Parts: sequence; structure tokens; C-alpha cells
Amino acid sequence: MLEKLDLTRTVDDKTFNESLAGYKERLSVLQRMLRDQKIPAIIVIEGWNASGITMSTQAIIQSLDPRGFTLHSIDRPTEEEQMRPFLWRFWIRTPSRGRIALFARSWYTRALSDEMQKPAWKKSLAKKIRSINNFERQLSDDGTVIVKLFLHISREEQKNRLEERERNPLTAWLVTPSIWHVHHHYDESLPVIDDFIEKTSTGYAPWNVIEATDRKYTILNVYSTLVKNLEKAVEGAKEVKPKKGKPKELVKPKKSPVKRSSTPEETRSKEDYQQTLASLQIEMLEMHYLLFKRKIPLIILYEGWDAAGKGGNITRVARYMNPLGYDVFSITAPDPGEKEHHYLWRFIRQYPKAGHVAIYDRSWYGRVLVERVEGFCSDAEWQRAYQEINEMEEEYITSSGGAMVKFWMEVSKDEQRRRFQQRASDPLKIHKITDEDWRNREKWDLYDEAIDEMLARTSTSIAPWTVIESDDKWYARVKALTTIIDSTRALL
Amino acid sequence: MLEKLDLTRTVDDKTFNESLAGYKERLSVLQRMLRDQKIPAIIVIEGWNASGITMSTQAIIQSLDPRGFTLHSIDRPTEEEQMRPFLWRFWIRTPSRGRIALFARSWYTRALSDEMQKPAWKKSLAKKIRSINNFERQLSDDGTVIVKLFLHISREEQKNRLEERERNPLTAWLVTPSIWHVHHHYDESLPVIDDFIEKTSTGYAPWNVIEATDRKYTILNVYSTLVKNLEKAVEGAKEVKPKKGKPKELVKPKKSPVKRSSTPEETRSKEDYQQTLASLQIEMLEMHYLLFKRKIPLIILYEGWDAAGKGGNITRVARYMNPLGYDVFSITAPDPGEKEHHYLWRFIRQYPKAGHVAIYDRSWYGRVLVERVEGFCSDAEWQRAYQEINEMEEEYITSSGGAMVKFWMEVSKDEQRRRFQQRASDPLKIHKITDEDWRNREKWDLYDEAIDEMLARTSTSIAPWTVIESDDKWYARVKALTTIIDSTRALL
Repeated sequence: MLEKLDLTRTVDDKTFNESLAGYKERLSVLQRMLRDQKIPAIIVIEGWNASGITMSTQAIIQSLDPRGFTLHSIDRPTEEEQMRPFLWRFWIRTPSRGRIALFARSWYTRALSDEMQKPAWKKSLAKKIRSINNFERQLSDDGTVIVKLFLHISREEQKNRLEERERNPLTAWLVTPSIWHVHHHYDESLPVIDDFIEKTSTGYAPWNVIEATDRKYTILNVYSTLVKNLEKAVEGAKEVKPKKGKPKELVKPKKSPVKRSSTPEETRSKEDYQQTLASLQIEMLEMHYLLFKRKIPLIILYEGWDAAGKGGNITRVARYMNPLGYDVFSITAPDPGEKEHHYLWRFIRQYPKAGHVAIYDRSWYGRVLVERVEGFCSDAEWQRAYQEINEMEEEYITSSGGAMVKFWMEVSKDEQRRRFQQRASDPLKIHKITDEDWRNREKWDLYDEAIDEMLARTSTSIAPWTVIESDDKWYARVKALTTIIDSTRALL
Repeated sequence: MLEKLDLTRTVDDKTFNESLAGYKERLSVLQRMLRDQKIPAIIVIEGWNASGITMSTQAIIQSLDPRGFTLHSIDRPTEEEQMRPFLWRFWIRTPSRGRIALFARSWYTRALSDEMQKPAWKKSLAKKIRSINNFERQLSDDGTVIVKLFLHISREEQKNRLEERERNPLTAWLVTPSIWHVHHHYDESLPVIDDFIEKTSTGYAPWNVIEATDRKYTILNVYSTLVKNLEKAVEGAKEVKPKKGKPKELVKPKKSPVKRSSTPEETRSKEDYQQTLASLQIEMLEMHYLLFKRKIPLIILYEGWDAAGKGGNITRVARYMNPLGYDVFSITAPDPGEKEHHYLWRFIRQYPKAGHVAIYDRSWYGRVLVERVEGFCSDAEWQRAYQEINEMEEEYITSSGGAMVKFWMEVSKDEQRRRFQQRASDPLKIHKITDEDWRNREKWDLYDEAIDEMLARTSTSIAPWTVIESDDKWYARVKALTTIIDSTRALL
């Protein structure tokens, strides 16, 4: 497709000046409309080296109010970024509602330059394509408009521009040997890029290829493409309003493969469990050290009924772990800033560094539990969350080389009442029990249904759930630690 | 002082177990009280290598609710951090109100290991001590409680512990040659550390030295010191409530050395200015490139009356600058998350990287302008802000090697009205004028007074104000660009 483009197109000065003035005004108005309608926008500018990415970026931001956009220039990842999965640095830069994020180069250039060095690059690039398409689809589902531009020039044109840059002392440093190296492989790259563009040109985030030989023609087309796409987004948002409210028709999940039970099959004395626990804690210390040395990250997440013993379990698991190598995240309702983003954004931001452990006391599963039951999100939102979560977890595990251990802590309704009452009568624990806990308890059956569906839909082979029978706290602690140690050992 | 300590102290098991249980409970209660009273707390744990910093950290966090604290393990700065001034990485980690930030090693270890390598380390360490004391005083003035612990062991004890670690395969990797190197200089380091501790032991952030030979004695003393200090903070907060309200007694500043005028001394035609501007813009492109290549950061800030032309001026200054090398920050009221921090926190977070330019459309001076006039902060807050700002700017400039260009854009009251009316009658500009602008105009005299005081108190030799006579927009643009180019040239 790229090969068939006419790269000789130009525009006369009069048309350029007149049209540009109109587009500039329009873009500036559109930015305010996006802000007022709280639509987040991502603009991706990609292209060949020396195709005019900087020039086009400069042209666009002339019309944008600096209060409402952020420009991200994407180069090699920093140390911090290298210690996270591929998409992490892009996820954390996604715009909040009503803002524009402008990417001068993006995940596309990074994917190509990461993968093309590998022997089996076709296969690994195919994997990145899936990841990218999922990423963009998830953002688009959440209301983000994504406009992608590719600036296309011929091999000849690129050669002329690189030589011109070399002659100018202000730009000569930009033309490194590796830029020339890439240039010499223009002809081999062309079909790869063509294919990459085709496979990532989706309904929700199509590519726009700009013939970028003539400077004025390029700028005009960058503007008109942006204006056209953003106008569509602004019109579209008027038509479809996201629906909020209680779930109406529940899709019955397939029979849950995960058996829930609150009572352990074996029973041993507390002292016996404590002894086992102590030796497991020492073993965990060693496992933690090995993860650190081999730079493998690990996520451990706890979901469970109120008073199922998540906090106490976490404390026991982390007993001898070096506090510098793990974090505990206790997840409550998102704060106002977090609400302005895709619901996965705040969790992805917290991804552990290579070699670190992140322990979650509640997690992204809140979307399909409390948010579903309490109506804090729309039906469509929690219903599509199963797929989003499965994609996120698979993406995380395969691209970080780590693991994810997911615990569902099951207690019986009776045991929960007993624990609530105990908390209420102990002055040191009374702060742990609130009216909300009692209110949640009244919705036991609704939660029960949501839990079943969650376990059925998100217990994947790569990230299965482990049910912890938690009526016996000591048993629960031993089981959690055993599971974590086994999963860690499998990674080493 | 360190030399005189008795390092042989121990504690018996019974006292340890009984006292520890009490302290743990108390610490956990204190954390909730800090949260409820919205007091931010910083806990710094420092000490010799192998003195038990990790062990003490582990002990403390056993009693803390993970939802309310963050542990920062401070090692060598990352790439990102190296591109910012020394205190940046600590400023951005200061806790929001009601939270605890626990630093396992901190600016103290970093200052020592950075400075001790330099030939004239005494002088440069003295500078760091001033910076650290200012940093801690500013946080303390803002309500942060700072508890600093130093774990002290003898040279002999350190040797034994390092040897013990070397024998254990799980810890042997921790004992690097440089750790031994530092150990061999224990005797020379002792007086330096002693002096460092003495000079940074202030009324608002005193040091607590813990004799750290015996493990149990150490833990007990870490706990008792924490509990004692946090209790004092919680009690103190009850007594003194910060006052809010309008300024009562204004301290008259010394005669302003900065002359304010809205009319330029020279007058040339618009076309003439535009021609000059075009060549200055090209020159600026070159300056920007040189800053980038030499890794020198630059901050340019604009303050001025509404409609003084800040936005248009910034666009002209940045006309040909590579957008990847600068950011424009338009400062409005702090968002809820930012309000939970010291008012300088959000600006320090935005410090430009080495080689980058940050342009501020309004800035931290809002504290002594709009916040003062509108009563958005207490008298004490804006009154101490002059010193805080002067310290921050000096710190920034000396530790980054960059510069700060500060513009006050002065327009006459008549010219402002003319521009307001023009905006109101132009459909493309009407969004730029709000009722608030007209309301602010009614307080002209109050702002006038605040501006005079600001210019008098914060025009320092290292970061002077430049008044731009802005009744003529084109003159203003030329003057701004000329000033920036001159300041940049002085850096190169």
C-alpha cells in the first residue's frame, strides 16, 4: 500500500495559507470541545527517519492550548522503564479525560526496533501487534479517541534529507551511523512497515498515511487528518452516551472450574501450623532473594470476603522479606485523579520493577465485584472487564517474565459474623469494622454471584485463581505461603 | 558525641517482649491519629553499613497499616534522577497530609557519598547541609513531623557483621569491595559523621542516635524514639491550629529596586519589531540546541497582569524551539492531590531535566499574589513564602547549573480594559475572558501592593526579575527573547 502512494504531491502557497488558518482555528476549537466533553485523545506521529515528525509536532502544538496537552517524545526506554513490561511506559502516559497526549514516535517505533533485532522477529512482532491492538482497543472502549499518522517519504528523499542535515552543524549530530544503517535497509523495511501498518489499522484506531515529501503539503494534511478525526470523535460522543446503572441481563458463565469452600480438608493444631509457617517464612526469604537476583517480578493478589483475613495473611507472607524488595498496595476506591483514567491505569502504574514483588490487598477485580454489585460502573464496563483483565494479566506475565498469584479467600457467612462481632468488641480492632461492612454483608447473594462469575471467567491457565479455605486463619496462611513458594520455584 | 556513647547496652527478653507489644500498639494508634489529624510524617533511618537499617525498617512496618505509608529505599540516583538537582528525588517523595514516608537511607547518605569523593568536600558538604536544613525547615513549617534515627555501631562490631554476612550465601553479595573500603575508613569517617549529625540536628528535625549493637535493644529504642516523637507531634497539632484569613499587619518591604512601567522607552513599528523577532527566534533555536548539548536546564517564568500577553509571548519565544526539548506549564489552582502537599511540591516535580527548558505561564509566585490577595492561604503561609522561594530558586540554580529567567509583564489599567473588551467582542477570543478576570481587576490596588512586595523581596542577584513593559505586545516579545538569549549566553 505504501508503495502505491504518489509522493510528488505539493500544494500552492495561496491554498496552504488560507486552508492552514482555517484548520488552526478549528483545531483550537476542537481541543476545547474535547475538554468540555471530557474526551481523552491520543495523537501518534510516526514515520521514517527525517520524514518531518518534529516539524509536524511543532506545527500542531502551535494551535493547542498548552494547559490541555502533553507532548511525549518516545526514545529508548530509561532504566526505570526497562524494568517494566513493554507497554508500561505508554500506559502511564495515557491522557486523563479531556486532555490530549501527543506522541512523537510511540509504541510502534519501539516495537519495531526492539523486535527487528531478534532472530525470530516475525513471531515476536506478531505478539506485539496483538498487545498493541488490545491496548488501543481497551482505551478506545473507555472513550479515548486515537489518531495515528504515518509520514511517508521515499528512500531517495530520505537520503537527500539526511545529507542536508549532515551539512548543517545544528543538526549534524542527529545523523548517527545507526540512522544511516537503517536508511540502507529502507527497501527491506518497507514491506515490514507496510504489513505492520495494515495489521494495526483497526476500526477503533486506523492509520492515516501522509505523503510527506513537500513540507507544506505535509503540514496541511497532518492538520486536515487531525481535524477530520477529532470532529468525528466529538460528534460521536454527542450521539452515544455511556449508560450507567444496575446490571440487567446477566450472561450466565460456564460452570466454574474453581471450587469454593471455606473449610480446609485437613485440620491440624494452631501450634502445628505456626511451626510449619515459620519454616515457610524462611524459605520465602530465600525465594525473594532469588527473584531479586534474577530480576523476575512477582504479583500476589488477595481478594476475599470482608474479614476473610487478607491483611493478617499478607503480614505473615512478608514476615522476613526484605522490605526494600516488595510493596503492599491496599486498594480502595479510586481517587478523583485516578477516575479520570481507564480503570486499569492505576494498577499498571504500580507494576513491580524487575526483581520486585507487589502484593495487592484487593485489586483490579474490584471492577467485577464491588463496582458491579454497587453499580459504581456501567454494565458494559464491568462486562468487558473480564476480557480486559485476562488480556492485561497475560500481557503482564508474558512480557515481564514474572508470575501472578491470585488468591480468593473464602469464609463462611457464619464465620464472617463471628469475626465482625469480635472486631466490634475489641477496642484495638474496632476501627477495622464499619457500617459499610455490615451493609456489604446484606448483599451476600449478589456478591456470591459476582464471585462465581469472576472465578469462572478469569481463572486462566497462565493466571489461575487459588481458593483459600479461610475459616481457619492459620491454615490459610500456610496455604498462601506454600502456593507462593511453589509458583516462585516454577519461575526459577 | 558518637564516641562517648555506651555501645554495650542490652535489654533482657522479658522487658523486650512486654515493652515491644505496648509500643507496637501505640505506633499503630499513632498512625491513625496522624491520618485523622492530616499530619504528614517523615521517618529517616540512617546508620553505618550493617548497623541494622533493614532490620529496623522491617520491625517498624510490622505495626503500620500499609494503606498509610510508603517505604523509600534510597540508593544511587537513577538516570532520571541524575538529570535533576540533588533534592528533587526527595522532594517528590515527601508524604501527603496524613501519610508516613519511611526513608531507609536518605539525603544524608547521598550527600555524604556524593561529596566525600570531591577534593574540596568540606566546603561542598557545608553547602549541602544548608540545603538539607532548608528543606527540612520548609517541610516542618508546613506541618510535617520529621523523625531522624541514626544507628550507631563500633568499628569492631561492623567488621564482625560484615564477616558474618560474607559467610551466608544469602547475604554475601551485599558485602561489596566498596563496603569494605568504607569500613577501612571508619575512624576517619566518625568525626565527619559526628559533625554532620550535629549540624543537621535542628529544633524542627533533631537527630536520635540509637546504640545499635544489641538487636533487641535497637528495636526497642527505634520504637520508643518513634513513639515519643510522633506523640509530641500529635499533641502539638492539637495545641496550635494554623490561622487562616486576610493579612492584618503588612510588613512594608524595602524600596523596590525593580522599576515597574508599562510603556517601553523606545518605540518602533510593528513590522520593525517583527523583523527583529524573526532573527531572534532563529538565534533562540541555536541557544536551545546548545543548552541541550551541554545538558544545562533553563526555567523561564512569566508573571503579569491578566491580558498582559503572557501566552502570546511564550508562543513567540518557543516558535522554532524543538518541542521535544521544552515544556510549557500553565499554572492554575492546585488540584486536590496537590493541595495535600507543600505548595512548592508540584513545581519541584516539574523541574526540567538537564538540557531541557521549562516555561511557566504563572508559577509558584501565585502564593504571594493571588493566594495572598484572595486569602487562599494563611498570612503566615504567604509571609514565609518569600524566603522559601528565594531558597528554592538559589538551590535550583546552584545545584542544577542552570538559570531562571523571571518576567513581570506590566500593563496599564487602561490597556488591560481595552484588551478585555477586545476579547469579549471577538468570538474566537471570548473564551479567554471570564467574570473572574473582571473581578480580579476590581482588586487592582491590592494586587499592586502584592506585586511591589514580591518584586522587592524576591529579586535576588542570582534570580533577578525583569520587568517587561507590555503595553506594546511586539516590544514585549522582542524584550523577552532578548533577555532569554542573553541569560542563556551567560551560561554557555
